[in-house]
Amino acid sequence: MDIKATLRAQHIETPSWAYGNSGTRFKVFAQQGVPRDPYEKLADAAQVHAYTGIAPAVALHIPWDKVEDYAELSRHARDLGVGIGAINSNVFQDEDYKLGSVTNSDPAVRRKALGHLLECVDIMDATGSDTLKLWFSDGTNYPGQDDIRARQDRLAEALAAVYERLGEGQRFLLEYKLFEPAFYTTDVPDWGTAYAHCVKLGPKAQVVVDTGHHAPGVNIEFIVAFLLREGKLGGFDFNSRFYADDDLMVGSADPFQLFRIMYEVVRGGGLDPATGVAFMLDQCHNIEPKIPGQIRSVMNVQEATAKALLVDPGALAAAQREGDVLGANAVLMDAYNTDVRPLLAGLREELGLAPDPMAAYAKSGYFEKIAAERVGGQQAGWGA
Amino acid sequence: MDIKATLRAQHIETPSWAYGNSGTRFKVFAQQGVPRDPYEKLADAAQVHAYTGIAPAVALHIPWDKVEDYAELSRHARDLGVGIGAINSNVFQDEDYKLGSVTNSDPAVRRKALGHLLECVDIMDATGSDTLKLWFSDGTNYPGQDDIRARQDRLAEALAAVYERLGEGQRFLLEYKLFEPAFYTTDVPDWGTAYAHCVKLGPKAQVVVDTGHHAPGVNIEFIVAFLLREGKLGGFDFNSRFYADDDLMVGSADPFQLFRIMYEVVRGGGLDPATGVAFMLDQCHNIEPKIPGQIRSVMNVQEATAKALLVDPGALAAAQREGDVLGANAVLMDAYNTDVRPLLAGLREELGLAPDPMAAYAKSGYFEKIAAERVGGQQAGWGA
Amino acid sequence: MDIKATLRAQHIETPSWAYGNSGTRFKVFAQQGVPRDPYEKLADAAQVHAYTGIAPAVALHIPWDKVEDYAELSRHARDLGVGIGAINSNVFQDEDYKLGSVTNSDPAVRRKALGHLLECVDIMDATGSDTLKLWFSDGTNYPGQDDIRARQDRLAEALAAVYERLGEGQRFLLEYKLFEPAFYTTDVPDWGTAYAHCVKLGPKAQVVVDTGHHAPGVNIEFIVAFLLREGKLGGFDFNSRFYADDDLMVGSADPFQLFRIMYEVVRGGGLDPATGVAFMLDQCHNIEPKIPGQIRSVMNVQEATAKALLVDPGALAAAQREGDVLGANAVLMDAYNTDVRPLLAGLREELGLAPDPMAAYAKSGYFEKIAAERVGGQQAGWGA
Amino acid sequence: MDIKATLRAQHIETPSWAYGNSGTRFKVFAQQGVPRDPYEKLADAAQVHAYTGIAPAVALHIPWDKVEDYAELSRHARDLGVGIGAINSNVFQDEDYKLGSVTNSDPAVRRKALGHLLECVDIMDATGSDTLKLWFSDGTNYPGQDDIRARQDRLAEALAAVYERLGEGQRFLLEYKLFEPAFYTTDVPDWGTAYAHCVKLGPKAQVVVDTGHHAPGVNIEFIVAFLLREGKLGGFDFNSRFYADDDLMVGSADPFQLFRIMYEVVRGGGLDPATGVAFMLDQCHNIEPKIPGQIRSVMNVQEATAKALLVDPGALAAAQREGDVLGANAVLMDAYNTDVRPLLAGLREELGLAPDPMAAYAKSGYFEKIAAERVGGQQAGWGA
Repeated sequence: MDIKATLRAQHIETPSWAYGNSGTRFKVFAQQGVPRDPYEKLADAAQVHAYTGIAPAVALHIPWDKVEDYAELSRHARDLGVGIGAINSNVFQDEDYKLGSVTNSDPAVRRKALGHLLECVDIMDATGSDTLKLWFSDGTNYPGQDDIRARQDRLAEALAAVYERLGEGQRFLLEYKLFEPAFYTTDVPDWGTAYAHCVKLGPKAQVVVDTGHHAPGVNIEFIVAFLLREGKLGGFDFNSRFYADDDLMVGSADPFQLFRIMYEVVRGGGLDPATGVAFMLDQCHNIEPKIPGQIRSVMNVQEATAKALLVDPGALAAAQREGDVLGANAVLMDAYNTDVRPLLAGLREELGLAPDPMAAYAKSGYFEKIAAERVGGQQAGWGA
Repeated sequence: MDIKATLRAQHIETPSWAYGNSGTRFKVFAQQGVPRDPYEKLADAAQVHAYTGIAPAVALHIPWDKVEDYAELSRHARDLGVGIGAINSNVFQDEDYKLGSVTNSDPAVRRKALGHLLECVDIMDATGSDTLKLWFSDGTNYPGQDDIRARQDRLAEALAAVYERLGEGQRFLLEYKLFEPAFYTTDVPDWGTAYAHCVKLGPKAQVVVDTGHHAPGVNIEFIVAFLLREGKLGGFDFNSRFYADDDLMVGSADPFQLFRIMYEVVRGGGLDPATGVAFMLDQCHNIEPKIPGQIRSVMNVQEATAKALLVDPGALAAAQREGDVLGANAVLMDAYNTDVRPLLAGLREELGLAPDPMAAYAKSGYFEKIAAERVGGQQAGWGA
Repeated sequence: MDIKATLRAQHIETPSWAYGNSGTRFKVFAQQGVPRDPYEKLADAAQVHAYTGIAPAVALHIPWDKVEDYAELSRHARDLGVGIGAINSNVFQDEDYKLGSVTNSDPAVRRKALGHLLECVDIMDATGSDTLKLWFSDGTNYPGQDDIRARQDRLAEALAAVYERLGEGQRFLLEYKLFEPAFYTTDVPDWGTAYAHCVKLGPKAQVVVDTGHHAPGVNIEFIVAFLLREGKLGGFDFNSRFYADDDLMVGSADPFQLFRIMYEVVRGGGLDPATGVAFMLDQCHNIEPKIPGQIRSVMNVQEATAKALLVDPGALAAAQREGDVLGANAVLMDAYNTDVRPLLAGLREELGLAPDPMAAYAKSGYFEKIAAERVGGQQAGWGA
Repeated sequence: MDIKATLRAQHIETPSWAYGNSGTRFKVFAQQGVPRDPYEKLADAAQVHAYTGIAPAVALHIPWDKVEDYAELSRHARDLGVGIGAINSNVFQDEDYKLGSVTNSDPAVRRKALGHLLECVDIMDATGSDTLKLWFSDGTNYPGQDDIRARQDRLAEALAAVYERLGEGQRFLLEYKLFEPAFYTTDVPDWGTAYAHCVKLGPKAQVVVDTGHHAPGVNIEFIVAFLLREGKLGGFDFNSRFYADDDLMVGSADPFQLFRIMYEVVRGGGLDPATGVAFMLDQCHNIEPKIPGQIRSVMNVQEATAKALLVDPGALAAAQREGDVLGANAVLMDAYNTDVRPLLAGLREELGLAPDPMAAYAKSGYFEKIAAERVGGQQAGWGA
């Protein structure tokens, strides 16, 4: 395998919302130069691609990124050297969704939520995006609040309607999450639930793994390997966490875990674009600057991928076959312990890029420029 | 609904191994009067049924409960007023299984493990048991030790062979567990994995929920509701835990959780024997006496069931429909806060039993008798 | 012990901020009739006291509850039948505190934060409050971001300055929290850290236990028992959680845990007002109405306390002495399984209150009144 | 700082019990060539030192390592090139300790347990060991089983008696553990409890951090930094875990965490032998061979230490001072991402050792020799 060629082909998608302000329930800290509209978000995302060379797609979030003319937005993206990635629906930031969206016991709310999801498919048509990402914050806070099982019926109904609406070459990815913002039940709390719904619907429904959405101790690479084996791994929402859904930069909390995940992707053939595994970031840069935060994250995924590609499959298989526990582990660790930064610097130079993206961006003056220009207007943020 | 009639019909199965010594990796503390063979285990289990009136079945564990003549064992059970319940396979206590049983990279070990599983079906035939419970300790301790995905292939192959062998009216229940004794990957770590395998095999394969086998924070009643909705809830291995797989007496750590689980069983129709949901105990009485520990556990399940049956479905549905969060929660809590002990004492008296099973057993002199008689021989314990 | 007299003497303090809007990072859902200033918050809190009879104190949050004239605010409270409880400082909602307050590496920020804390003591003087509650959101999100140990030095310095400023009969309670909003280190993450600082400072510094601020599996009643034994339990911030710091109504997620906590309080003499243990609520009513949410919470604490008072100390001690594991557990469970609602209804009637506070409040028309009157102005919420 | 000199001075202590068989509650898998007495354990430990050059001390476990003549045992160790390290007490493997040792409600059991602890000090005198390691499995399985607070009184009494007995230059390290084998309360469950007891006793009592003994999410390096700042970090029991107290090889589950821990040790001066921080291993090699398992573990600690030493303190402090979140994190990550294996291979060659200890041991024929020689007799294991 030509490692460099494989690494050059890996595309990491950044999310438009990562360029706006974000925070915790306690405080959203504002940053300088934050974009005020989807066009400025795309411009920032284009910077990440310009310095890393492997981040050519940008996910949109509806309604945060609603515009009059999606064709124009797509053109704007193309002019910046990037393209529109997944369309992310939002059925959690409207007063009507206080007790749920597609699983709400009120049929009027369910209709409204489904309408939004179908509108997102319209936007896919308009932008040429082939992927709809569905995350439902739906759930309950108190035992008895609503009927767990009836909510599954309602969920199944909504998913079927969306599935039905998908066009040729379109798919949706169903996201699961253990908790937050619901604190007792969540209607899609784990991969099993997402998988069960997707299997019933068919090949256009797949599961997306957000690396921060699991209970403590859950083995994420196992889930990745399992879903790949089933043809149901639609992609990743990458980020990292020490505690709950912390949404820190991917690879910053447990780089070895990220490596193990990427190893299972490599092992399962998931780097082959034909499998359709999407490598997306989904993070909250609460205190660190946005664009460098994304650049570092893209680099972290790339470093983990490079290390995963360095694992010697023959030596590993031999040690596994012989039951050589320490030997097999050592094959994996040898790859992990390798410093791949020189390899990746070389790769960038082959692509005509600076070897150190963080330093190059810092020197570019882009931040100073947007900090000066983007005054007035409403800073974009969650919900903006 | 006639609550008392429903409670009378609920059967709770106790496990033969709960009557033997058990412990932690640090120490197995021996107790007096512990049975020395399967016949004595059945005698102890019969005591639990004699005082509770709802524990007429006893699960066997193979090879711990191997006997020459299973027909004789079944007769012995019948004479004691109980019957043989699920057959539990054991592919974790042989030196060959150090690196796995049906998922071992060595085909000879896999063949041996499969042979044991098929032998368990033979024992089902011989005892008339209709349920095989499959728990695999298979997994790995170190990243790289073995191939996650290949192990799934091997697991699927073994399960298919067992499924094929099942006769008319027989089924298997597949158990999942997050970790222990494997500490990196477990080959069936969660309900999603068990569910996916069972769905592929067909109706004779179902999932069993051991209440101590989840990651911290996982909502067990959600899983119960989901599996019931899918027709894939085969039953429970009841116990309770504060930390990991502590195997304490069911209901002792979080009685409210047990109530919520039983509420979902009631809600989903799982008390109807036709659904085939088996209510089994699986506990380790490391420091408390065995028989009273089982009696208390049976009573705890019964109390939780009684409370679940007291939930007013009409009031609950109305509050849920209106989005009355506090009202709906209050309907559930009203049932939970009810003291059902008088109701259950009355139920026992109707059955001709003493109202207080713990006191009645203590007074019976059974413990003093077995403590005096069961000297010499090898006390039964895990592995014995 | 006269249980009813003890229950009558127990005071539960409600927090002013619980009457305003709150939410998660995803969305703050607005409610009708939410107060627009500290005076209206006190009016709502007075309702909780009016129907429960045991919630006569209201905690303030500075600067959210800043007013021109604290003497007037205290008078207003008295007129409503309540009083001012603990003063809660806030050093987490200012742009300057992005990287910390009293532990910030910038001395100017530290000075500002300390200034705020000292101002809170001024407000204690002005209101007659004897308790300052200190919670620091300070921490870091990324390894290396700041020096763990230097931050402890800065924390110690600030705490010493506040301690020095405390007057006769004044104290502070130091709160700990595992994580959020900081996601890598928190400067006061556990009771050990809070305890160590308090021990060094002296008797006016005590630890406050927020029941939602622990890692999964941590035994909270152990901490309560330990701190009481050391004379360092200053009080509680009550709420409940299934996952992280969910801030649900106390007693709603694990009523048995709340009972165990209250049992340790009873066991350690913590209901004696002389010990100074403060019973405070700290919850977020994201989706349920505020005032009934607080009423239910006060009732839940009271029910747990009543059950704890029902534990038979002589029977318990005897069983413990004899090593009777099941017997000792049964003594505790007998109290827990008792339905104390009739007892508490009777208690309320002796106090001249309606036996069912939830129903009485619902019938009172108060909600309809504030929903109609409190239009216009800015609804209070976190940060308002 | 001379990194190589510092690394040469770091001593890692291996435990005698790691060379014997170990397992889980489900099964202890036997290995070939396992030692049959303390003398053979020392011989195996000497191998680890021979190939790593930095493991010259061996911890003993009493009564597992009881011998007639400790002077002879010490001589034997010296002849092998190693020395006796910490003495580990064992008050958990006797029938009397079923409900606790020093915290048992039965005074006779407490006396017996204290007697054992004092005997361990005698053995320190006899062997010249300066460190006693105290781990208590004491706790309860069920709420109400015993009095949490009375158990603290009993614990304090026993610790005071042991403290009193310590001679000049002797100390004890108190170990904490969240749970297992006790599943409801543990009498020393966290660092705060251990710290509080040690502070009261004086400078000869310190806390030992077992890296597997925390609740999920607990930040271990914070505890390390805090205890070092207080002069109360006595040392480490190193191992690693994905779930609970898995006792895997240190550094195998989360090498980045091990690096962060070692960074705080370096930052706090803990590599200076004057601070007395002991670097001890405490692992269970359930499925991997014992001696190579220890060699790998020693190497993992050394690699983490080397990386920690590579952190540029000036650059880090500057970034931290400026609030440069990404910059400060990058300084740490630069060190972590460095491949230190060449550096350590060079270090070994300077010491006259083979550059690859694993390969050198494998080639040595030692395993084949002990597998052939150590037949007959009783293999050593937990409790043997």
